[in-house]
Amino acid sequence: MEYKELDVKSVIPYLKGVDEVINYFGSDELQVKEIGDGNLNYVYLVSSASDSKKALIVKQAVPYLRCVGEEFALGRERMTYEIRALSKFKEIAPEFVPNLYHVSEDMSIVVMQYLDSHIILRSGLTDKQKYSNFSEHISTYLASTLFQTSSLYLNSTQKRQLIDEFNSNTELCKLTEDFVFTSAFMEDETNDNENVKDNPHAKKLFNDMEFKEKVLELKYKFMTSTDALIHGDLHTGSIMLNSDETYVIDPEFAFVGPFGFDIGALVANLVNNYIHHTVVTKDEDFKEYLLQTIKEVLELFGDKFLKLFKSQKNSALFVDGYIDEESANRYREKFLKQILQDAIGYAGCKMARRVFGVAGVAEIRGIEDNVLRREAEVLALAISREFVLRYEDINTIDEILEIIKSAG
Amino acid sequence: MEYKELDVKSVIPYLKGVDEVINYFGSDELQVKEIGDGNLNYVYLVSSASDSKKALIVKQAVPYLRCVGEEFALGRERMTYEIRALSKFKEIAPEFVPNLYHVSEDMSIVVMQYLDSHIILRSGLTDKQKYSNFSEHISTYLASTLFQTSSLYLNSTQKRQLIDEFNSNTELCKLTEDFVFTSAFMEDETNDNENVKDNPHAKKLFNDMEFKEKVLELKYKFMTSTDALIHGDLHTGSIMLNSDETYVIDPEFAFVGPFGFDIGALVANLVNNYIHHTVVTKDEDFKEYLLQTIKEVLELFGDKFLKLFKSQKNSALFVDGYIDEESANRYREKFLKQILQDAIGYAGCKMARRVFGVAGVAEIRGIEDNVLRREAEVLALAISREFVLRYEDINTIDEILEIIKSAG
Repeated sequence: MEYKELDVKSVIPYLKGVDEVINYFGSDELQVKEIGDGNLNYVYLVSSASDSKKALIVKQAVPYLRCVGEEFALGRERMTYEIRALSKFKEIAPEFVPNLYHVSEDMSIVVMQYLDSHIILRSGLTDKQKYSNFSEHISTYLASTLFQTSSLYLNSTQKRQLIDEFNSNTELCKLTEDFVFTSAFMEDETNDNENVKDNPHAKKLFNDMEFKEKVLELKYKFMTSTDALIHGDLHTGSIMLNSDETYVIDPEFAFVGPFGFDIGALVANLVNNYIHHTVVTKDEDFKEYLLQTIKEVLELFGDKFLKLFKSQKNSALFVDGYIDEESANRYREKFLKQILQDAIGYAGCKMARRVFGVAGVAEIRGIEDNVLRREAEVLALAISREFVLRYEDINTIDEILEIIKSAG
Repeated sequence: MEYKELDVKSVIPYLKGVDEVINYFGSDELQVKEIGDGNLNYVYLVSSASDSKKALIVKQAVPYLRCVGEEFALGRERMTYEIRALSKFKEIAPEFVPNLYHVSEDMSIVVMQYLDSHIILRSGLTDKQKYSNFSEHISTYLASTLFQTSSLYLNSTQKRQLIDEFNSNTELCKLTEDFVFTSAFMEDETNDNENVKDNPHAKKLFNDMEFKEKVLELKYKFMTSTDALIHGDLHTGSIMLNSDETYVIDPEFAFVGPFGFDIGALVANLVNNYIHHTVVTKDEDFKEYLLQTIKEVLELFGDKFLKLFKSQKNSALFVDGYIDEESANRYREKFLKQILQDAIGYAGCKMARRVFGVAGVAEIRGIEDNVLRREAEVLALAISREFVLRYEDINTIDEILEIIKSAG
């Protein structure tokens, strides 16, 4: 099928041609509403005319940035990778990925489950909501998706096929290379230059060569490690949940990259939320909950990842009988430690880039009071600097918490 | 064009349809001789009937291992990657790659310059030939091919396209994963089992978990680093030379892999030759020449690589103005040191695998006297163990030479 940009009028006729969608609704009497609050794509909520609780989400990419307009070209192929990643992650971790009713790479479209009783994790945390199952859920998601798409699980042929499927997601990888690792740390037109101007903290960051040299190492690793299929943008805005269920959405940045990147993104965003509460709500109990969540996520991830690793006797890397169990365990533990160290390095880059870079986070850039916002920025810069300079020397999860606590 | 397996009769009719070849000969009166001494492919020497000095090499892959026969299937697609690598390396380092007159991925065929006054480096060194330009040549080849196919030179889009072109060379990458990093260090039917049987040194190697754990780290890095387009099998049998010219041939193992692998392969094979002379000829002068060659190759490679690195202001990794020159230089030197360290790790794997693994090297496995051969094997195992256990701690090239000398 040839690509055609849909609009609120043509969505329903299109869906009527898709059996899975009509079967879901049990009727072709449908209504549609555009709800696109995202920056990149058009998003429609389609529901049954007779039962508005029966609803699906339709997401279509257009060959430009939706929030800017047609003059900002961005290939709609990003949806190709989102479709492939959603499908792969759904296969591996079905509980944590929305149901898919229809996908078409040609049409750059996906029709999926409407998460009507779930909210974005970032908003929930900012409102001091505690999610008692979140650490358990997200650690399972991370351990299984990372492990099962790596050379520790796949054989060499499967691994190269996986690389092939995602290798050309160049445009979105480049956005990360630029915005997470580069332009936010130097004078650049894409930065939040109103804040950069005459700001001693921006000047200090842009001149912090020790920090930037380490960022360069992490950027190089990001560009040249093919550990596993990663989500690529796993901040707290890419997670929707309620007390029972957790869903990971929007994997358009997916590619076969470094193990630590998704974990680092999550940690960075939990710390950003912690900083918000340090500066704005001063809610010590909720701050403690966030620290506990970081600790649990990392510990549970480690336990689950090691368990999967131990259960796999043959893979691209391991051949049964090659090494004794004691050495294999030592190897696996060293391997895990390096994943967690890299995650902290990436977390540092991700936090620092949110301060002056193109895309801020609500918890910090959204603080209206200038003094408080500056205070939050200084905290974010202090923690991210420690993360980036020290990540290779971190030995325990408690050391990570110590860095966060001693700054704020 | 559809694939057709050529033979000594159909080669000439095929070549008559290729303008570049006919132009080279200036005539279509050709004669042909099969000279395939390789294991994998059919190789023909085609020359002008009137002037036998006018000659070209025709190399065609068949979908099996030539030296075993049709029952050992091996995809002829290996020639696809050889063609792509030859073309790319010719573009970057034209002096050191034979001229290409015709290539066809469909036909799995390449027609190239006949190196009539050059010999295989391995044979030359075994015959105690010194090549005064070799270090200069091969260091230029290595620095330029590795640098110009890396993220230190290409932009992100070019780099991902390059990965794409070679990513599916799965079958040959798998051979390396198996034979260089795995089966030669455990009981396996592909090993030289006549030698393994009742051999205390084999038993010791197969039980050396400290060594094997480090090999596993190097294997993982081999499988998941996309630093640069590497030759993938740069032993001294893949180099043809005379006192003036040096050519690198047979890059069918090429893929985008770790920086250190080709350098390591070369060092390993120079050390294997050194061991041969230690045990067989006991020629101290030639041994000194070999040590000097290793030192020169590594030093010149480092100088040339750094020079290229410094001259490139923008790449996938670097953005002009991101970092000051002092920090950039510190970064580059650290980067180079890691390449050389990894090279020594890979050299260790490559040496050790030649002792009991499927494919020995002439310098060691070819020693007819059992006592001397065993002596050479013990030396190779001793040096390779030091290389593999210590590579991450090596700070200078002299330390590498010290390891070689103190063993033999």
